[in-house]
Amino acid sequence: MSRGPTPFRTISVVGAGALGGYYGGRLAQHGHDVHFLLRGDYDAVRASGLTVKSIDGDFTLPPDRVRAHRDVREMPKSDLVLVTIKSTANDQLPALVAPLLHETTTIVTLQNGLGNEDLLADQFGPHRVLGGMAFVCINRVAPGVIHHTDHGLIRLGEFSGGRSARAETIAAMFNAARIRTNVLDDLRYGRWEKLVWNVPFNGLGALLDATTDKLIGDETHGLPLVRALMGEVVAAANANGVALPAAVIEQKIDATRTMGAYRSSMQVDRQQGRAMEVEAIFGQPLRAARAGGVATPHLEMLYHALSLLNDTRSDLAT
Amino acid sequence: MSRGPTPFRTISVVGAGALGGYYGGRLAQHGHDVHFLLRGDYDAVRASGLTVKSIDGDFTLPPDRVRAHRDVREMPKSDLVLVTIKSTANDQLPALVAPLLHETTTIVTLQNGLGNEDLLADQFGPHRVLGGMAFVCINRVAPGVIHHTDHGLIRLGEFSGGRSARAETIAAMFNAARIRTNVLDDLRYGRWEKLVWNVPFNGLGALLDATTDKLIGDETHGLPLVRALMGEVVAAANANGVALPAAVIEQKIDATRTMGAYRSSMQVDRQQGRAMEVEAIFGQPLRAARAGGVATPHLEMLYHALSLLNDTRSDLAT
Repeated sequence: MSRGPTPFRTISVVGAGALGGYYGGRLAQHGHDVHFLLRGDYDAVRASGLTVKSIDGDFTLPPDRVRAHRDVREMPKSDLVLVTIKSTANDQLPALVAPLLHETTTIVTLQNGLGNEDLLADQFGPHRVLGGMAFVCINRVAPGVIHHTDHGLIRLGEFSGGRSARAETIAAMFNAARIRTNVLDDLRYGRWEKLVWNVPFNGLGALLDATTDKLIGDETHGLPLVRALMGEVVAAANANGVALPAAVIEQKIDATRTMGAYRSSMQVDRQQGRAMEVEAIFGQPLRAARAGGVATPHLEMLYHALSLLNDTRSDLAT
Repeated sequence: MSRGPTPFRTISVVGAGALGGYYGGRLAQHGHDVHFLLRGDYDAVRASGLTVKSIDGDFTLPPDRVRAHRDVREMPKSDLVLVTIKSTANDQLPALVAPLLHETTTIVTLQNGLGNEDLLADQFGPHRVLGGMAFVCINRVAPGVIHHTDHGLIRLGEFSGGRSARAETIAAMFNAARIRTNVLDDLRYGRWEKLVWNVPFNGLGALLDATTDKLIGDETHGLPLVRALMGEVVAAANANGVALPAAVIEQKIDATRTMGAYRSSMQVDRQQGRAMEVEAIFGQPLRAARAGGVATPHLEMLYHALSLLNDTRSDLAT
């Protein structure tokens, strides 16, 4: 069931956790030649394949249909590399991606926060790089077993800005594989807009072990903090040439009211003793704010506090 | 073993937890007529008395030497009222203190933070009120059993400022009962100076479950936060006419380096699921800063974050 000619015949997924396993699995399910770099789940996937329970339809890839690898040097040069490792492991990224590149390989990072495209562009050239924001609720519930419980949209854009035929082709390929995907005119705008939500709800959610409804339901303490953080992110974006309007703040808060008692991914990371993506979601925007000459004391405090929690998280792991 | 004439023949302790039990117990041990208002520990104290294990000498007051009361209306009018309830219960303070007062009763609050003397002064007149800061490591380990593990100094001052014969008399009485006590020229200065330590180490300690050595040992994240918070407290004090010098910041940090892995009382409160004294230690200074026109965003964030934790602490109690 190959989908015929495409410039992306060989696809590699670097970091097949929940995100890479789900999106890579969808592409493989729809006939693409997808190679997965696995670590802890390698044995389970070799033995039992990849199982996805999804609101968009369950599927299982049996072992002989999952091209699983433990070492990136055994993987083929690829036309498309999907980067889905956590940004906390970005120091490994050059070594993990370099062996997969041929002259025209395109790299799409689906990682969270700021700075991931920049890192890849610095290493491998800006012309190769796109970024995608994944709006998805997804969990790896056991080795080789992924639950996709809500949403799933990818918003995709060129690192260098503007729309491109390449982005449209990738989006079409993804959409045909039941991954709803839009192309962005302005990836940076999209990244900063997402941070307006992520900074308060991932940050305070993890810091205070609080679901979104607790934070916005407390008009005295929670909502003022959420608004202060969102305001600082908007100011930092503006100082960096990204024209986010202040109205986005109340839009995001209103949208959050519909989400119920939502546990952010970072709250879950902390509960489970996993590293939180503090640099990508807080450190990079903070440094951008400083570079833009904007004071963001609430963001700064959140950044330092979460960094301290990250550094001592073995004490907190449950 | 009565110590002879003193203007403070009858003493009442409002809130005989660790603090009230220890200091009241010392006074009773040395022959003073001390009445204790007890709640949860009443039955244990009636049955077995009050036991104190202390670095300054252990002692037990047998049941017939502890004047224990469950209802303030059964207690005598007193010459001296020691207020030792947690400031989180300050809404009960007027009802608990009023029945103990005669025309010349003196009230000494040994509670933490700002605003406690003001509340008592508003209710009962500023002329009655002194404040004392207790620098002491003390725990109630079982009903009627108190461990005093370090320090013990009380720094005492008039709410209305300046030294007084009354303060000297109380200090002499305390010192004679093996409670080391100094008299302050300026209680407000003392209160704000103590906050310079309490705000960062109680606040971040509780928020991050971090001992003092973890906070100041991290030069990248911990120490900058500690310094930022201390700087805001100093600025707030200055704006309120309290001439704390900026040098107090490094003095407090240096002193903290000698304390090892110290768990602040608020960190312990949170670990044990008890209410944290957020208003007295963070809310009041924050309001004073605002009144003084000083921006204290780190303090503000800590205040809101700890308030959220206080409000949801049933989820966090261990």
